[in-house]
Order: sequence, then C-alpha cells, then structure tokens
Amino acid sequence: MRQSDLFTKTTKTISAEEKSVNASLLIRAGFVDKLAAGIYTFLPLGLRVLNKIENIIREEINEAGGQEILMPALHPKENWQKTGRWESFDALFKLKGGDKKEYALGATHEEILVPLAKKHISSYKDLPRYIYQIQTKFRDEVRAKSGLLRGRQFLMKDLYSFHADEKDLNSYYEKIKDAYWKIFERAGIKDKTYLTLASGGTFSKYSHEFQTVTSAGEDTIYICEKCRLAVNKEILKDENPVYPVRNRISNGVCPECQNEKFKVEKAIEVGNIFKLGAKYSAPFGLKFIDNAGKERAVIMGCYGIGLDRLMGTVVETNNDENGIIWPKSIAPYQAHLLLLAPQEREIREKADLIYNTLLKSDIEVLYDDRNLSAGIKLKDSDLIGIPLRLVISGKTRENIEVKERKRKEAKLLGLGEVIEMITNG
Amino acid sequence: MRQSDLFTKTTKTISAEEKSVNASLLIRAGFVDKLAAGIYTFLPLGLRVLNKIENIIREEINEAGGQEILMPALHPKENWQKTGRWESFDALFKLKGGDKKEYALGATHEEILVPLAKKHISSYKDLPRYIYQIQTKFRDEVRAKSGLLRGRQFLMKDLYSFHADEKDLNSYYEKIKDAYWKIFERAGIKDKTYLTLASGGTFSKYSHEFQTVTSAGEDTIYICEKCRLAVNKEILKDENPVYPVRNRISNGVCPECQNEKFKVEKAIEVGNIFKLGAKYSAPFGLKFIDNAGKERAVIMGCYGIGLDRLMGTVVETNNDENGIIWPKSIAPYQAHLLLLAPQEREIREKADLIYNTLLKSDIEVLYDDRNLSAGIKLKDSDLIGIPLRLVISGKTRENIEVKERKRKEAKLLGLGEVIEMITNG
Repeated sequence: MRQSDLFTKTTKTISAEEKSVNASLLIRAGFVDKLAAGIYTFLPLGLRVLNKIENIIREEINEAGGQEILMPALHPKENWQKTGRWESFDALFKLKGGDKKEYALGATHEEILVPLAKKHISSYKDLPRYIYQIQTKFRDEVRAKSGLLRGRQFLMKDLYSFHADEKDLNSYYEKIKDAYWKIFERAGIKDKTYLTLASGGTFSKYSHEFQTVTSAGEDTIYICEKCRLAVNKEILKDENPVYPVRNRISNGVCPECQNEKFKVEKAIEVGNIFKLGAKYSAPFGLKFIDNAGKERAVIMGCYGIGLDRLMGTVVETNNDENGIIWPKSIAPYQAHLLLLAPQEREIREKADLIYNTLLKSDIEVLYDDRNLSAGIKLKDSDLIGIPLRLVISGKTRENIEVKERKRKEAKLLGLGEVIEMITNG
Repeated sequence: MRQSDLFTKTTKTISAEEKSVNASLLIRAGFVDKLAAGIYTFLPLGLRVLNKIENIIREEINEAGGQEILMPALHPKENWQKTGRWESFDALFKLKGGDKKEYALGATHEEILVPLAKKHISSYKDLPRYIYQIQTKFRDEVRAKSGLLRGRQFLMKDLYSFHADEKDLNSYYEKIKDAYWKIFERAGIKDKTYLTLASGGTFSKYSHEFQTVTSAGEDTIYICEKCRLAVNKEILKDENPVYPVRNRISNGVCPECQNEKFKVEKAIEVGNIFKLGAKYSAPFGLKFIDNAGKERAVIMGCYGIGLDRLMGTVVETNNDENGIIWPKSIAPYQAHLLLLAPQEREIREKADLIYNTLLKSDIEVLYDDRNLSAGIKLKDSDLIGIPLRLVISGKTRENIEVKERKRKEAKLLGLGEVIEMITNG
C-alpha cells in the first residue's frame, strides 16, 4: 500500500480525556477512530491487525474441532427471560422494535445457541459438538475508559461445547487451554500471560482466566512465579466456603506447588474458560438419549476471547515512548518502506522498484512515498510500529537501511538479503 | 467435513408461517436458522456460502481501489440529527444506554463515515478516496416476510467514494458498475440481473439499481430486452418532472434504445449505486482545498450490496422441487461424497480413502458417512444442493458415480478423472 493513497494520517492531537495508552497510540497512529466512549471504528491499518488476530484464533479453534456459525445480535426478550438474565445481566442493552416486541443486543449467546442446539442434538451420537462464532457483542458498560480493553461493542470469539458427561467436558476443557496458549503465544503475549484461578459459578470450583500483566489491567492477580499459576484477587474476597484456595493463599501458599512467594500485579483478562454444566441446557430442556436409552441433560462449557481487547492488550504491553511495537504475527504490514528523498527522481525510481519487487515476493509492505520530510516519516514509522523499517535515501546507494522497530541499531543490506530475511521470518 | 460430525441436520418440518422459498429451503437444508422475523443465524453450511460471497465482493471492491474499514453499529443520536435522519429515516432502531444517551443502530453509515473522513481529507491531494466495509446493518422492518431478502439485521457491503468534482465521481461510478457486474456474474445471477433506472434523489436524475428477476421480488421493473436496460415502476409513479424517462416509457419507448417492447417482471434489488453529491458532506462540513487554494465541498457516491439478500436471491433463482442448486462459485463445498453402504466395511474403507484423497487434493468435500439409508442421503444431497454428487456404493466398484446437481444423468468415472474434473472447474 502506498501511504500517499492511505485513507488515514497520523495525528498529534488527541482528546485530553483519552487516558488509555492503547487507545491514545492506536488513534494517533491511525489504527482506530473513537466514535463515542467504548465505541471504535477500525481503520485500514487497524482492520488488518484485527483480521490477523481473527485468523490466528480461527485456525486454533478449527484445529480444536470448532464449527463456525454466525448468530444475530438482535435477541428476543423471551430467550433471555428463560434463563432469568433479562433482569440479572447488568450490562444488557434493551430496545423495542416497530413490532412492539422487546429485544436485547447480544452480550453473550447461550440464550440463542442452546435452543438452536436443541434442534440438532438429541442422541449421544450427536455429541460432542464444538460450536463457535466470531461476532460483535454489545455491553452497556457505563464506565468505558480503557480504550479497546473494555468496549460497549466489540468482537468476540465465543465457543460453546456440548458433551454427554463431565468427563468429556473436562478433557475438552484441557484441549481448549492448550489452544488458548497457542493463540496467546502466536499473538505475542504468552510470556506476560498467566493461567489464573477465578470464581467458577455454579458448576465447578473455579473457572480459569488467562490474565496478561499490564498496568492498564483492571484485575489484581497473585502470581506464583515458580509454577506460573495465578489467583484472581476476587477469589480471596469470595466468602464461598467451597474455595480451599482462599485459605491456602491467605496463608501465603500457592495452591498448586506450595510455593510461598507471590508477586502481586495488575492484569487484564484476555480469555476465559468456564464449565457451565447444565446451567443453560436445563432452562431450554436441551437433553439427549444416552447409549442405554436414558434421557440426560447435555453438559456444556464456554470459552471466550475478546478480539479488540487482545489487540489493546498487545499495544499496552508492546510500546515505547515513540509508539507501538507490533509482534510480527499481527503487524498490519511486514515491512515499512520509507523513501526519504521523494523529490529526487533517481532515488524515487529506486524505491518504487524495491516496492514492486517486495510486492512480487508476496511481502506485505506499507510504502511511505509521501512528499514529506525525513523527520516526519521516521516519527510516523515509529508510531505505527511495523516490525521492520526499510529506508531508501541518498545515503543508502545500492543498499537498504534495515532496522527492526524493537532495536536501536540499523544495518545496510541488499534487496535479496532483505527479502530472504522477511520470508524466512 | 464428515457429515456425521456436522452440527446441523436437514429437517422436513418447518413453521407453516414461513412463506418464503429461500428461507424454507435454507432452513430445511440446515444453512440458516430463524430466530425471529427477519433475524437469522448462519449455520456452518450457510456461513461457508456467506464467506464465499463476501470474498467475491471484497476482491472486486479491492480491485476497484477500495480500502476496507469496520465501523460500529452503535451510533450517537447527534450524528443522525445532523442530517435530519434521526427523525426521517423510517426503519431506524433506537435505544438508550446506561449513560442516558440515545443511540441508533446503524442502518447505513454516511453519518459515521463523513465526520471521520473530515479528520483525514482536507486537500485535493487526499482525493479521491474509496472507503468500504462489510458489516452488520440493522433496520426495523415491520414486515420482514421474505426470508433473507429483507432482514432486520443483515450483512452489507457499503462503499463510499469521495471526489474533488462531479466528473471524477461519474468516472468512478462507471467503474463500480463494472465491478458490480463482475460480482453478480461470479455469484451466478448476472443473466437474470438488469441495470435499472430508479429514483435518484437530490443530485442526479436517476440512481441505478441492479435488479434480479424472481417471483419473490418486491419491485416491478420494465425490461427492454433489446438493450437490457430496465426501469423501476417507482419512476413511472414519480411526479417529479425532471424525469423525461417517465414520459418516454409511458409512451411505450425505451429511454435508451427507443425499442417499443417491454417485459414486466417482479424483481429484487441486489445492488444499488447512488450519486450523493454534497448531500452528506454539507451537514458535516466535509470540504477540501483545491489546487487553486479554494475551499470546495467534497462530492460523494455510495454503493451497496446486501450479502444475505444476494444469498437469498441465488436460492430463489437456483432451485427445483428437490432443493437448492448452488452455483460452483458460492457452493458450501465443491463436492458431496455419499457412502451408500455404510455397513459394508470394504466399501466404507474405499469411501474413506477417496475422501482423504480429495482433501489432499485441496478439494472442499462434504462426506456423508452417516449410518442412514441411501434414500435419505440422496434426498439430503439434492436438498443441500452441492454442485457435484459423488456416490460410492456396492455397484460403483472401482469407480465413482458422478452427477451434477443441475443435470439428470450420472456417469462412472475414476478418482483421477473426478479430481481433474473438479480442479479444472
């Protein structure tokens, strides 16, 4: 993409009320635009990142047997009344249609998927099933101040699993734990992410969250650095006596490895996995006939990852004073080619040729061919944060000045070497 | 995909109130599920079709220079008040948030994109720009009875172009006409689709619709078979004297080629293109400095295609008494492999081997490996409508019985011939 054609420009001015680091950087660099609190447009650069995150998640969930569907956002009131959440779910947007009926805007989809599953699951032969979507959720968050970390509308991958028994659920639950680790590794945040015990609700003792350490986080977690397990502070506050963890950690002992040293950190929940049991299958009567001919309730699990939040978390954990530092896997482009002497015909022709050669080598490249000063271009490049910067100027002659965004030193390389370097990762 | 693992099953029973052919077939075959009037879930088979339609549209719009973004569905009331459409747009869903502010659910996105464009367009150097998204729209249709042809929530490709002058708009408008023809050709409905003159609004004499002839259509069009131009009946009713077309067609003459024969048909609008002029740039003050240093209004065009509607239209125009007949380009799978003797080990092993070989040849195949009768499998296959049926039974021996969905005769071919046939289109 030629930057002279790109819809967006970087900007220095940003609303003083924008306190969040991720939103500030993403807005300044032209990845997103803020329409209202917690409501963002993804601009061309931002949508490229979001699509890469989406593809990573889709690949890993498909690998774990997921079948993708797409459920609607407009939900009839009756579905939410069946589970009691029309009243109890505290961030539900509600509206009335011209047909005088009431609707919720989907904040989660158990109320839609479970009655749908009932049409297709009736026998043990129909189990297990793993159904997911990547779809826009709406939540009426009154305090949406953390940029992409907490939106009022956001993309979510929500996976729901249907099982004949608890044993099968438990084994799939472990499989999804592995899939989540692969996703967070590929997105570049595994090192700062901890499997964290959290309140589990009705069915299991705990649920598991994946918490990424960042000062922008809304949760506090106790990390055992020895076994890398963490515990969400909310458990410690919980008065429910089924939590032996509470006592142990209150006594200063890791519930997993008995280590006595904890680190207390702010963190953001980038994923969660829940054992639901029959909590949602019961109100909708989702049952199956087992292989002995007996009718039994279908057992469920659910597993979420917010895509916008993941993107915001990557920015919170990968930046410096000059801008964003994207991991290669989700960067909007693989390389940022800068032409620093746009007025000089010979140098421009050389840069154009290099740009076209990179495109022919299937390399995703943003080409800053604008008639602007070297200073502006270098600053913009740091702000946008593409992992590899390629500079063409009067000084580079036959070569290209190559610098990784995350390093200080640059080096001169030939075009062939650059292509090999990018292609081989 | 093994059909024994597929989430959905076909069904014979469908609500008696479902009058629409497209919804009936798509629900019975397991492509979509109806949640409420005009609100559908896309099931695994349906989502595959939707994704193929989406990819065709994306490729052609990118080819026409489009830059993709993703705008939100929650729109602040103030944006819609600026254009007067908070009151005048008659199918706008409205709701109130916990912040006491009012929001519209996006029915179209001029109100969001124009103020956003103002942040990035200020000079003639920033023009033209072609910005689009593929995103969920909401419209509070009180009568949503045509299945996927008129939803209350649906996916739409909406493209907006920004120009320095009318001449540039006119030339891009023609470019998009060509892109639309390519899209409808690739989706398999070009032959039944007519470029149709329709009411144009404030800026141009007419807008253009792409209307596909089907008895399920909501519009009536007058088709000149000689030059393939059509005129929407709404123009004839229009009392606006700027339409010379009205007089000519009332006098029985085609406005394009003076032909005097018309065919009157029901049709559905599968795409529309509009010259907006400064209608939306004016209220938001979207201006630019031209190359003479003078401030001028940005001139706009907008161009829509509804994805769900396109899918419904394909079904309405491609079916027989046994089910859907998908065009190859958007079929959920390229081939439907049926194992008709699932209990016989030798035949099952042969079918499994063929299935795996097809997968290794990168052929998308749905494999009906279920323990069901041949009659059920053949009926399901016709209903689902995958273009090529491959039957393995006790009779086919070393070969495969190959039948195109749209033809009656079958033939026996070897596996290599089948792969070659599919791979070479």
